[in-house]
Amino acid sequence: MLVNGVPGNSISIRDRGLLYGDGVFRTLRAAQGKALHWSLHYLKLQHDCAKLGIACPDEALLCVELDQVLAQHPDGVVKLIVTRGEGARGYTPPADAAPTRIWDFSPLPDYPPEWTTQGIKARVCSLRLSAQPRLACVKHLNRLENVLAAMELNDAQLHGEPAAEGLLLDAEGHLIEGTRSNLFLVAQDRLVTPDLSRCGVAGIQRGRVMAWALQHGVTLQVRDVGLEEALHADELFIVNSVIGLWPIRELGQHQWSHFPVAAQIRHGLDQQDA
Amino acid sequence: MLVNGVPGNSISIRDRGLLYGDGVFRTLRAAQGKALHWSLHYLKLQHDCAKLGIACPDEALLCVELDQVLAQHPDGVVKLIVTRGEGARGYTPPADAAPTRIWDFSPLPDYPPEWTTQGIKARVCSLRLSAQPRLACVKHLNRLENVLAAMELNDAQLHGEPAAEGLLLDAEGHLIEGTRSNLFLVAQDRLVTPDLSRCGVAGIQRGRVMAWALQHGVTLQVRDVGLEEALHADELFIVNSVIGLWPIRELGQHQWSHFPVAAQIRHGLDQQDA
Repeated sequence: MLVNGVPGNSISIRDRGLLYGDGVFRTLRAAQGKALHWSLHYLKLQHDCAKLGIACPDEALLCVELDQVLAQHPDGVVKLIVTRGEGARGYTPPADAAPTRIWDFSPLPDYPPEWTTQGIKARVCSLRLSAQPRLACVKHLNRLENVLAAMELNDAQLHGEPAAEGLLLDAEGHLIEGTRSNLFLVAQDRLVTPDLSRCGVAGIQRGRVMAWALQHGVTLQVRDVGLEEALHADELFIVNSVIGLWPIRELGQHQWSHFPVAAQIRHGLDQQDA
Repeated sequence: MLVNGVPGNSISIRDRGLLYGDGVFRTLRAAQGKALHWSLHYLKLQHDCAKLGIACPDEALLCVELDQVLAQHPDGVVKLIVTRGEGARGYTPPADAAPTRIWDFSPLPDYPPEWTTQGIKARVCSLRLSAQPRLACVKHLNRLENVLAAMELNDAQLHGEPAAEGLLLDAEGHLIEGTRSNLFLVAQDRLVTPDLSRCGVAGIQRGRVMAWALQHGVTLQVRDVGLEEALHADELFIVNSVIGLWPIRELGQHQWSHFPVAAQIRHGLDQQDA
C-alpha cells in the first residue's frame, strides 16, 4: 500500500527482507484513525533495528506515512515492515544500505467476542523454539518457526481439534510464548511471564502488562516457566496488539473458568486505550 | 528478472517470502549457458519445499524459465527463490497458496584464483548457530544468523583482519559449517564432515564430495566435530556451488600449506563439471 512513501504494493526481488528475512516488523491496532500505542511501537522498532544493525527510519517520517495509511484505513490492523533494503548477492549488508519502509493494512480479524471474557482453548505445539540469544526478543522477519507452529494448529483444526492459540516451548521444555502472543501466569497473586533472553518475541502488550503490574504494586516475575507450573496456575492469559488480552480456559486436560486478575488487567489496559 | 515466468524484478509486499522468510532458495553456477548440476539442485529444492510443506514447482516449468535466464546470462550465478506465495495476514499458510518463482542473476564474484590452489584464511565467528531440527539442512529464507555472521567478518576486515570465510559453531561448540559453505576435514586419510541434523545447510556440493568419497573408497564420517579436532586436522576445506572448493590455509594460530586430498577431490569434481 505504501512503500518508501509511495503508494504501491511491491518491492524489489533484491530486497534483503525477501532474500534473508533481514528486517523487522510491527503490527499495530488502528482505531478511529489513531494507531494505538504508537510511541511504544516506535521504541520497539528502534530496539529491534539496533539489534540487527539496521538504521531505524526517523519517527517523523514514519508518522507522516502512518497518517496517510490511517486516512484511508482508520480502523483495523496496520503492519509496518522495515527491511535493511536492497543489496547485491551475499549475506554481507552493503555499507550504504537504505532501509525499505513497507506499510500494509488488513481488517480487524473477526474473533468471537467471548474469547475475551470467557477465554480460549489453547494447545501446546510440538515444535520447539530454538535458542538464539542474539535474536531473542526481536520481532524480525525470520518467522518460519511461527509458520510451522501455525501449520500444526491448522492441522489440529482440520482434525476436529480447534484451538485459538498454540503455546510454544523451547528445547529444554520451558514455556516461552504463543505463536502470535506473549503469555502470563497468575499464581498466588503474583504475575509471572517467561524469560525471553534465549528465544521468543517481546511484544509491546507484554511490556504494557508488566508496566501495569508495577503501577499497581503487583509482584511480577520474569523467569523460566515449565509447562507443569502453567497447568497449575490460577490463571493463564495471552496478549498481543490485535487481540488485546485473552484468558486461557482450556489447555490439555486442564480447565479454568474464573479470570479475576486477567479481567482486572484487561480493564486497566482498555482504560489506557480509551 | 523473472517472476512466475514473467520478466520483472518485483514481488508483492504480501508474499510470505518477505513476510516470514517462508520459502527456500538455490544458488546455481551457470557456465557456457548451462546450469551446473541442475538435477541435484532440483532434488534439493524438492526436499526443502517438502520440509516446509510448500508445493514444489514442476521441474519442466522451472527448466523453461531457467533456459530463459541462461539465454540472457550464460555465465555467472543464477539464484532461484521459491516462496509459499502470497497470503493474508497471519502465520497460517492459505490452503490455496500458489508458490512464487523468482529468478535472479549476478556476475561471478571476482575471487583471487589462488584461494582455490593455495587456500584461504578463515576465522571462527562468535555467533553460535541455534539448533532447530525441523529446519536443519534446509536452505530456507530465514538467514539472519548468516547475516550476523557475515557482519562479523565484515567488521574484522574493516579492522585489518580479513578472512575469506567464517566458520560457525553451535551452542555446544560443535563446528557446523561456513557462513556460506560446507566444511570437510581430512584426518588420517578419512573425510569428516559435520552432522547437520540440528542446524546448518546441507548444500549440493557437500553431497557431491560425499558421493566422490563413496566412489573412491575413501572412508567418510558424518558426525559431531569439535573446533580442536578441526585445528589438528591434516587438511580443512570448504565447498559451495559458486566457489567450488577452497582449502583453508589459516585458522586462528594454525596454518596449513599442503592440501593433497582437497586437490584430488577438487580435480575429481572439476572433471565431472567438464
